Amino acid sequence: MDTLVGILMGSDSDMAVMEKAGGVLDRFGVGWEIEVMSAHRAPEKVTDYAGSAEDRGLRVVIAGAGLAAHLPGVVAAHTTLPVIGVPLYNGALGGADSLYSCVQMPPGVPVATVAVGGAKNAAVLAVQILATGDEALRAKLRDYKKELSEGLKL
Amino acid sequence: MDTLVGILMGSDSDMAVMEKAGGVLDRFGVGWEIEVMSAHRAPEKVTDYAGSAEDRGLRVVIAGAGLAAHLPGVVAAHTTLPVIGVPLYNGALGGADSLYSCVQMPPGVPVATVAVGGAKNAAVLAVQILATGDEALRAKLRDYKKELSEGLKL
Amino acid sequence: MDTLVGILMGSDSDMAVMEKAGGVLDRFGVGWEIEVMSAHRAPEKVTDYAGSAEDRGLRVVIAGAGLAAHLPGVVAAHTTLPVIGVPLYNGALGGADSLYSCVQMPPGVPVATVAVGGAKNAAVLAVQILATGDEALRAKLRDYKKELSEGLKL
Amino acid sequence: MDTLVGILMGSDSDMAVMEKAGGVLDRFGVGWEIEVMSAHRAPEKVTDYAGSAEDRGLRVVIAGAGLAAHLPGVVAAHTTLPVIGVPLYNGALGGADSLYSCVQMPPGVPVATVAVGGAKNAAVLAVQILATGDEALRAKLRDYKKELSEGLKL
Amino acid sequence: MDTLVGILMGSDSDMAVMEKAGGVLDRFGVGWEIEVMSAHRAPEKVTDYAGSAEDRGLRVVIAGAGLAAHLPGVVAAHTTLPVIGVPLYNGALGGADSLYSCVQMPPGVPVATVAVGGAKNAAVLAVQILATGDEALRAKLRDYKKELSEGLKL
Amino acid sequence: MDTLVGILMGSDSDMAVMEKAGGVLDRFGVGWEIEVMSAHRAPEKVTDYAGSAEDRGLRVVIAGAGLAAHLPGVVAAHTTLPVIGVPLYNGALGGADSLYSCVQMPPGVPVATVAVGGAKNAAVLAVQILATGDEALRAKLRDYKKELSEGLKL
Amino acid sequence: MDTLVGILMGSDSDMAVMEKAGGVLDRFGVGWEIEVMSAHRAPEKVTDYAGSAEDRGLRVVIAGAGLAAHLPGVVAAHTTLPVIGVPLYNGALGGADSLYSCVQMPPGVPVATVAVGGAKNAAVLAVQILATGDEALRAKLRDYKKELSEGLKL
Amino acid sequence: MDTLVGILMGSDSDMAVMEKAGGVLDRFGVGWEIEVMSAHRAPEKVTDYAGSAEDRGLRVVIAGAGLAAHLPGVVAAHTTLPVIGVPLYNGALGGADSLYSCVQMPPGVPVATVAVGGAKNAAVLAVQILATGDEALRAKLRDYKKELSEGLKL
Repeated sequence: MDTLVGILMGSDSDMAVMEKAGGVLDRFGVGWEIEVMSAHRAPEKVTDYAGSAEDRGLRVVIAGAGLAAHLPGVVAAHTTLPVIGVPLYNGALGGADSLYSCVQMPPGVPVATVAVGGAKNAAVLAVQILATGDEALRAKLRDYKKELSEGLKL
Repeated sequence: MDTLVGILMGSDSDMAVMEKAGGVLDRFGVGWEIEVMSAHRAPEKVTDYAGSAEDRGLRVVIAGAGLAAHLPGVVAAHTTLPVIGVPLYNGALGGADSLYSCVQMPPGVPVATVAVGGAKNAAVLAVQILATGDEALRAKLRDYKKELSEGLKL
Repeated sequence: MDTLVGILMGSDSDMAVMEKAGGVLDRFGVGWEIEVMSAHRAPEKVTDYAGSAEDRGLRVVIAGAGLAAHLPGVVAAHTTLPVIGVPLYNGALGGADSLYSCVQMPPGVPVATVAVGGAKNAAVLAVQILATGDEALRAKLRDYKKELSEGLKL
Repeated sequence: MDTLVGILMGSDSDMAVMEKAGGVLDRFGVGWEIEVMSAHRAPEKVTDYAGSAEDRGLRVVIAGAGLAAHLPGVVAAHTTLPVIGVPLYNGALGGADSLYSCVQMPPGVPVATVAVGGAKNAAVLAVQILATGDEALRAKLRDYKKELSEGLKL
Repeated sequence: MDTLVGILMGSDSDMAVMEKAGGVLDRFGVGWEIEVMSAHRAPEKVTDYAGSAEDRGLRVVIAGAGLAAHLPGVVAAHTTLPVIGVPLYNGALGGADSLYSCVQMPPGVPVATVAVGGAKNAAVLAVQILATGDEALRAKLRDYKKELSEGLKL
Repeated sequence: MDTLVGILMGSDSDMAVMEKAGGVLDRFGVGWEIEVMSAHRAPEKVTDYAGSAEDRGLRVVIAGAGLAAHLPGVVAAHTTLPVIGVPLYNGALGGADSLYSCVQMPPGVPVATVAVGGAKNAAVLAVQILATGDEALRAKLRDYKKELSEGLKL
Repeated sequence: MDTLVGILMGSDSDMAVMEKAGGVLDRFGVGWEIEVMSAHRAPEKVTDYAGSAEDRGLRVVIAGAGLAAHLPGVVAAHTTLPVIGVPLYNGALGGADSLYSCVQMPPGVPVATVAVGGAKNAAVLAVQILATGDEALRAKLRDYKKELSEGLKL
Repeated sequence: MDTLVGILMGSDSDMAVMEKAGGVLDRFGVGWEIEVMSAHRAPEKVTDYAGSAEDRGLRVVIAGAGLAAHLPGVVAAHTTLPVIGVPLYNGALGGADSLYSCVQMPPGVPVATVAVGGAKNAAVLAVQILATGDEALRAKLRDYKKELSEGLKL
């Protein structure tokens, strides 16, 4: 199974939330990898990861971050792959800091932002993105949507 | 050229902003259509549009809306295609109303939200999404990213 | 006793709050029913419920939802009955997300929004609405208002 | 035609917005009256108005106010009729001041709050409320909803 | 000792915070009384209290309230005594609801608002107000200010 | 006529708003003075002003400021007179910056905060404060309240 | 070792957070002192401290404060040394009160503001500031940055 | 005159605000350079600039940015020089987006944030920083502070 989705987060304290994205990807049979790297403390690691992501076969990057959540934007600056941002909530400012830092990207470099703490939905979105070029995955999504309507809890 | 991206908005007063998304898609040679339909005033039109979008060949839906911006979420409820939400600003509450209404989707049904008023970035994101299954488009994105770094204004 | 009020919520985790509305309706002898249905995961269930509510004899719908609280707006899109929205608070953004998503409805399709977590007041409002056409209920409301002024805790 | 809806506002500078509610009520053939009275400067006038509203035949009160928008809440304290609050925006705080002051009512005394500046929707809601006891009005609402879906601008 | 300050609150759940104001007044030898009365549930009680406060010898009223904190404004509407508002925090919206509802009063009817939860400071302000006409109290305030600068905890 | 109220502001660009306070004080026959002084650029001037205010015969200080509105708090730190803060709005953050900086004072040193831009109400509050020790002024306030209820615009 | 950095806070309840700044300074071999003094309760102590700081050899002041966080601004008003503000969070308003009160300083008197609760970063910034005139400290910062990139937790 | 301060901004539309920083630096005889570079569109240019800044003799970097204002944080990630962030306001969200994105940096990599639009204060702060190692500049700051107290407008 190819690794198509990279899951990143700025701090290992975010692992408990972000690894839920992996669980959802497993359900759809989509290969993934997960890594902790800070856009501010280890920017070259992030640049290298983002710059090589497409060549290594990744097709989508999910990046979770709190506070001034720059990680998704920095990744997006260094790749043409779609980048999904997951704002994380750390206590102050109601999480508006991470939400605004993820979503308010300038023209040219979007980050596809999901809800505060929305790691699972980031994974569903990644599957929807991959499915635009993969009829088998689209079929799985249709089944999944039917299950949702029947009460499936994500 | 196939129509791969549907651009929706809740009110024709949003046309001036939302049609900029079409301009960006043209640049990448991606076919699109644009329609005005309100999730609240004409919900069946939205349901029909969303429910048939995949069968009609669309691969991504961009939906812009202001106030309690439900349009992207309602579209997302009726399709498995990726839905990109563009919050629009109408004067009160700084646009936080439309941003929160777009992005804070519950588990299972994501909306890929871009910046308040970010119609152009919605189009860039749509191209990135389509490019996950289209090497020619990925090449165009790499060229585009180079142009951005050289000063291209979107 | 006819069932005049439908109480809906987007997730069964909201039951503890929303069933308080039923307790208030009982006090006034107003019949009610309660159901969990998500506007995003099971939109057809919501559409069917809203579309048939008037014919089934309902006169008011109360809908509670958190995050991007679309449930009341989606119900309102599919019925001409008055819809009361109860924003629910989930931790991030202070509940402003659900409040704005409930209340900022566009021209033509109102949602009568009460306080964050205000399920009891939604029920009082439902009784006030029904009483506009029911003198006996108006009398009960006058008694209730007198009791409130004497220290009754709702 | 009976006067069933009272439209109030705290300041005559709010008249241009609030009289739009009357226009919508006219469309449905619902009688209304409109008055300017401040909950803070002329509280007795408000108390008298609210206290006698039901006896004078009113069935719904719409109250618009800006800043610390107490008018709807004060009216609601003195009547058992349903009170619809219209928060108005005066420049600072994005209108959050009037929205919160309208909607965050304590248990026992609800205000049915609509969008910031939503005078037209207040009128639609008033008609929906009156229609719970009036089949002819319900029929008009069904026609109106059909017109909305066909593009009617409120 | 004359009773010069009335301390009000909207709900007895606010007593633990509000009675701290009494403790501060005791320190300055200023007589006070404390009562629970809701501007929304028992408006006539509030109107009577405020309307007779000056005649009964009160010189300042302190009113604490949460949510749509109308109590101080309603009191201010019915008396010419200075009214001090204490916004109280109930969980949602960070307390901005009660703060805005207290402070954003319209021209003509001010409420002297202190910090969210600031019952003690309301009492200090009441003493400062009374001291404008009472040299002995001004002397006590000067001593108190000296003690503050030496580390006194209020 | 004694000068009983000092009106301060942080910048002469605030004069147009703040001098309205003087107009209201004139109406009540209360003497006042007005000065521009910045708590940050000319702190000693502020300290001297505040420290000598009581001895010079002032009984209330009104201080208007925008942005991080420290002026009222700095004055309050250096006098035992009641200090009324007027938050002023400068474009960004909706005025919440000046409001929070005025009102959220720590225990021991209150600022009596009025609405954003509420210079007139600051003057009314100053009159109410002075009236606690001045029966003639209380009589004027009762007349004024009557005029307000009859439609007087402040 | 000279004492180059003064660490201040408004209340001893802030000590647990603020003393972390000292720990970071120790790591870089920068001498520091720490004191509790309130800009509002003991303003002269603050004025004296700030006014003499440069002469006593301090080169940077770090000031942490909550609520209407005036301490950093008052210090900045009385010294030409760079002042670093640390907004602290006390429960209400999400910490926006202290953040806005720190950062929104008027032209002429800046406060270098760090994140809500960011005492450690205040210390790193102090070291960066001192290093502009100290090559040995710059070398330590380069080592530290390398360690950060290798996973050092501050 | 050595170039000690680099002034950056994310878009040339920010030039009118940001070049005011240069004017202030001129007043103090501090050499500066100014450049437009986007952290998102031209990240390598930013990385190169930041990475070489210290070696080229810069001692402070001022970076202004709007929306998700990542520029100061990205610069700070690639240099050990102090980085001053100037949040810029673009219409939506009251500027809270750029403020939060600048200031809420994670432990280890601070950005010294000034007020929204505070380019002049960024320059004053830069001078204060440089003055920690330059007695002649400290003398100029003392003169400047005296002029401020005498009414100098920055």
